[in-house]
This record gives sequence, C-alpha cells and structure tokens, in this order.
Amino acid sequence: MQANGTEKRFLKALAGRKVDRAPFWYMRQAGRYLAEYRAVREQAGGFLDLCYTPEFAIEVTLQPIRRYRMDAAILFADILVVPDALGQPVAYKEGEGPVLEPVRTADAVKDLNTSNVVGHLAPVFETLRGLRRELPEDVALIGFAGAPWTVATYMVEGGGSPDHALTKRWALGGEPGFDTLIDVLVDSTVAYLKAQIDAGAETVQLFDTWSGALPESGFDRWCIEPTRRIVDAVKQAHPETPVIGFPRGAGAKYVDYVKQTGVDGVSIDSSVSPAWAAANLQPLCTVQGNLDPQFLVIGGDAMLSEAQRILSTLGNGPHIFNLGHGIVPQTPPEHVAALSELIHAGTADD
Amino acid sequence: MQANGTEKRFLKALAGRKVDRAPFWYMRQAGRYLAEYRAVREQAGGFLDLCYTPEFAIEVTLQPIRRYRMDAAILFADILVVPDALGQPVAYKEGEGPVLEPVRTADAVKDLNTSNVVGHLAPVFETLRGLRRELPEDVALIGFAGAPWTVATYMVEGGGSPDHALTKRWALGGEPGFDTLIDVLVDSTVAYLKAQIDAGAETVQLFDTWSGALPESGFDRWCIEPTRRIVDAVKQAHPETPVIGFPRGAGAKYVDYVKQTGVDGVSIDSSVSPAWAAANLQPLCTVQGNLDPQFLVIGGDAMLSEAQRILSTLGNGPHIFNLGHGIVPQTPPEHVAALSELIHAGTADD
Repeated sequence: MQANGTEKRFLKALAGRKVDRAPFWYMRQAGRYLAEYRAVREQAGGFLDLCYTPEFAIEVTLQPIRRYRMDAAILFADILVVPDALGQPVAYKEGEGPVLEPVRTADAVKDLNTSNVVGHLAPVFETLRGLRRELPEDVALIGFAGAPWTVATYMVEGGGSPDHALTKRWALGGEPGFDTLIDVLVDSTVAYLKAQIDAGAETVQLFDTWSGALPESGFDRWCIEPTRRIVDAVKQAHPETPVIGFPRGAGAKYVDYVKQTGVDGVSIDSSVSPAWAAANLQPLCTVQGNLDPQFLVIGGDAMLSEAQRILSTLGNGPHIFNLGHGIVPQTPPEHVAALSELIHAGTADD
Repeated sequence: MQANGTEKRFLKALAGRKVDRAPFWYMRQAGRYLAEYRAVREQAGGFLDLCYTPEFAIEVTLQPIRRYRMDAAILFADILVVPDALGQPVAYKEGEGPVLEPVRTADAVKDLNTSNVVGHLAPVFETLRGLRRELPEDVALIGFAGAPWTVATYMVEGGGSPDHALTKRWALGGEPGFDTLIDVLVDSTVAYLKAQIDAGAETVQLFDTWSGALPESGFDRWCIEPTRRIVDAVKQAHPETPVIGFPRGAGAKYVDYVKQTGVDGVSIDSSVSPAWAAANLQPLCTVQGNLDPQFLVIGGDAMLSEAQRILSTLGNGPHIFNLGHGIVPQTPPEHVAALSELIHAGTADD
C-alpha cells in the first residue's frame, strides 16, 4: 500500500484516512446516458459482447473519467457474467433485461459447471490489465461482482422479477439445493474477485441489490453469511485490498452487515438517512453514497443542495461520495458535470 | 373507551395494554387466495364495483373472519378510491393493475374536484356501518386510507410503476403543483378517515407503501409531515381513536416516523429486524408485523417457526401479529389456518 502524498484519494478515504476533499464516483457512470457509450454499445453487438471485448469494455469504462474525472473507475461488466461462466447462458433482450434458463432444483444446481469460471472470464481480467495501463495515475480501479443472494435471484427467477418470490420460497422454505447454489456462488465469486485483484483491481465491491427483499433471518443467512465468507477468502489472498459491500435496502440492518461481514466500506442506498449513517456506520467503516439518482435527472439547485447536504453530513467521517443507485438513462450529461464540479471544488471541506 | 374485561384484544394491544395473547390480522386477508372471494369478485363485475357495493364489500370483509377468526377485520376498499373521488377515474384492467389519467401539472391538480370526496365515498361508510352490525363483538374494525405520498405516486405515474420516477422528480425538483397535490390529499384523507370513524371504524391505518422510494429529505417532507397533519386532524375530531402508520421500507427512519407523526401503532415490513423493532420502536408505540407473506405460501415448520420467532421477539412489548405486506394470491388457505391456530393457541405467552 502506498502511504505517500501521491496515494490515490479514493483509496485513502476507503482506508479511513484524511483526504483533502471527498473522493467520488457514480454507480453506472458508464452507461446509456452518454452518447459515446451508446455508439460503442451499437458497435459491440450484444451486451455480453461489450462486456467480453476488452477493447470495448476499456473504452466505455474510461468515457466518464474523461468527461468528469472521477476518483475511481469501475470495471465495465455485469453481475450476470458469473452465471454465464457457470454454464447458465444469459441473453439480453432489448428493453426487457436479462433472460436465463431458470435453475430451480438441486439437480439443476448440480449441473452448473464450476470448473471454468476464471477461464471463461479471461476477457474481464484483460480489461482490468488494460485499464491499469490507461487510467490516469490518481484514478483508482474498482472491480466488482454480484453478491450470491442477488445473483441467485436472477438464476432462479430466470431474470429480473418484482418480488423474487420463487427464490425466497426456495431459500426460506428449506427445500434442498439452495444452500448448494449459494456455496457455488460463494466459491465462484471468490475466484472471480481474486483474479480481478490479480489483474489490477485496487478494491472490489459486492452488489447485493436485492438484499432488502429478505426478512432478517434470511438476510443473516443469505446476505451476511455468504458475504462474510467472500470477504474472508478474498482477504486471505489479498490482505491489503479493501472490500466494499452494498446491501441495498438493508435499512437498520446495515449495522449488522458491516459488523459481521468485515467490509472496509459500505455503500448506502438513497433511503438511508445520511445523519443516521454518520452516527451508526461511519464509526465502523467508510461510507459511500448516497444521492438519489433522480436528482441527476432534476439537476440545478435542487441537485446541488441535496449533494451539499450529504457532503456536509458525512464529511466528518470517512466518506466516498456516490449515488444511492445507478445513473438512469434519462440523465442529462451536463447535470453530471455540474455535480462533479461541486465535488471537485471540495466545498464541504472548506 | 371500554376498560372492562370485554374490551377487544386488538384495541387493548393497540393502546399498549396487556393482553392474554398477541392479537392478529393479516394485510390483504380478504383476497384472491380465497375461493369465496373470487366468487364474489366475479359477481361484482369491476373491482371498484366490489368496493362500492356494500353488500359485496361487507361479505368479502367477513369471509376471512369466518374462516380464521382474526382479532380485527379491515374494511374492504382500495387506496385509489380517493383519486377516484377527486374526479380522477381509476380503471382496473385484468392482470395489469390500476390505470389513471396522469396528473402531472399544477393545472391538473387545480382541476381535481375536492368538493365531493365524502359524498362520492358514501358506499364505503355504509359498508362500515354494516360491518359493525355483523362482526362478532370481539373483532375490531379497521378503516384505512393510502398515505398522500403513495396515493400521489399512482396519480402522477398513472398507475403502478417500478421506481416512481416522475413523482420523485416533481416532488424533489420543486416544480409547482406537487405541494398542492399533497395538500389536497391530506385534506381529502382527513375527511375520508373522519367519516370512516363516524361510520364505525375503531382505528384507521395509513398505508405508505412507497415511502421507501424517497431519500430522507423527501421522506420527512412527503411522508412524515403529511402523515403528522392527518394524525393531528383525525385526533382533533376523534381523540380516542388510535391511528396506525405503515411507512413501508422506511428502514431506520421508522423511529423518526413514529416520533414525529404521533401514530399509536406502526406496521413494520418484513425487512425490519424484530429485535431492532423491539429495542427501538416498542418503547414508542405498538408494533404490528411482520411475517414475510412468502412464508404463508411455504407453510409448514418453516412458516410456524418464523412466526414463533416473531411472536417471542416482540412478545415483551405491545405487539399485533401481522404480515410485513399483503397475502399473495398463491397462498394456500390451509397455511393461513395453521398460522392462525398457532396464534390462537397463544404459545408465545405461555
């Protein structure tokens, strides 16, 4: 770990050290709201082709950095590359989201191919190596994966779903197979993240987008416990690499999540009160968040004053500015510019 | 208020007094999972015809009480009768949910007809009067309305929506009209709930189903503040009538909600940890909840042990057993019977 004056601002904040201003990046900062992204997306063909072609994935990862000079770039990929690597092919239909052949039985879990996850995902690691070469030296590189519970919901439902009902019934009802599916996802995710770090990722984030759908008993078992196992295994191989968790919708359970998983940083969704996070989470780890992405569509003073409020409220503890969820396609790029300027100016620290 | 041995168990618990066992009811206990409901629904024609025909609405309200003898019956109606009464007609298309002509401008808000809300909803009050006659004397009668924020999302989006984006942008961006819409909904809801109590409702519940979609600043302004105004006005007219709030998805903000709105009871969604609610909410008011409705689909030991865990954890403070959200149509009625038997047996108090 670097400890001199050139250490990246993002990594300093993630380590809980003092920084000159809040570092920032935005979830889904590479995406459809940018014309240059849409151009590459069209050129690439399918969405997975974009993820699996290092030339394209590097380019779209760099696009927002060129425009807004965030303090961190996040690998362009998708959380469903893991099921894809397990032999459960993922198709992306225009305007419909991902479609998978559902895995709903113990036998279907046994049929998953666990032997070639890292091999299948080789292009992702090449993307990371390319990004380390091309990124400005003060910009950190974030790798990521979906957390097991969230990835399992897509695998079981066969895509997105409003309430993840089938997955919840399988998990909470205790029918055989779901434990094994989670075990497969823990092992695959550990291998995937370790290889991402080997390829140059300086931190990794675990997205548990649907953790809020579980009651507490299930949250402990299917969100906290698998995440703890992943954090432990990744840190055993890479003790210096910080891990960020994002248990979206965890409410007051964010505290248990941070205490029990051992993450170094926690990303909070927009429903979390910044004052509550300052009091209850910042004493435990670095907090990342949490502007509502709709403010980036609104823009203007409403956006800037809400961002300022978050910067002020979380400014006394370790904080990485971010959104509470991904940038939406309707976002005008000039609003992203205005927000980024506010943070670059570091007004919260003055 | 009664204070003798015949006082209804549900109302005693809601007042924070000791009861022999936890009272219970289930959100959406009248509904499609019951064959006898589907029969009446078919006979009624449209969904609003069911709500607005006292004979039918009384019948479907009583159906689950006959089967399971809950401690409370909830008026059969819909939160969208208020926009309907304001002259924004609501259509229910089979399998698609409600459809409304969207209200998205200050002018459209001005066009709402606020003069006949209580008149338009006369059949609902007749239903309540009929229910007071027909309900067993130990079963309490609950009235309800949607909270202004949640009703506004349907009015603005023109129906259900995954992220309430247009409503959030209007509310958070500060364009004119949204404040007025909320004011209209506060006034209409106060009039509606007061008339429900006049017609026999012994408590009223405010459903803020989509409050979890708002960041804290918006939550304070669009969920807590309108709810506080409604609670104040209802209690001014009916100081003895308890009010229950349900800010679904409020996470740690449940505490602020209870403290600032003045509700007598709070319904918690399934993502809330019962132990956290016991420590943080039961000292403030009665807690209602919070079995995940998917457990009622699962049934068996998994359902019963989760229910037992909730009963034990919340059993030392004022508690009304309920679900964290409504019963889903796939629920086998015999699972509801088994759960109800567990609670009738009162094992948590033994």
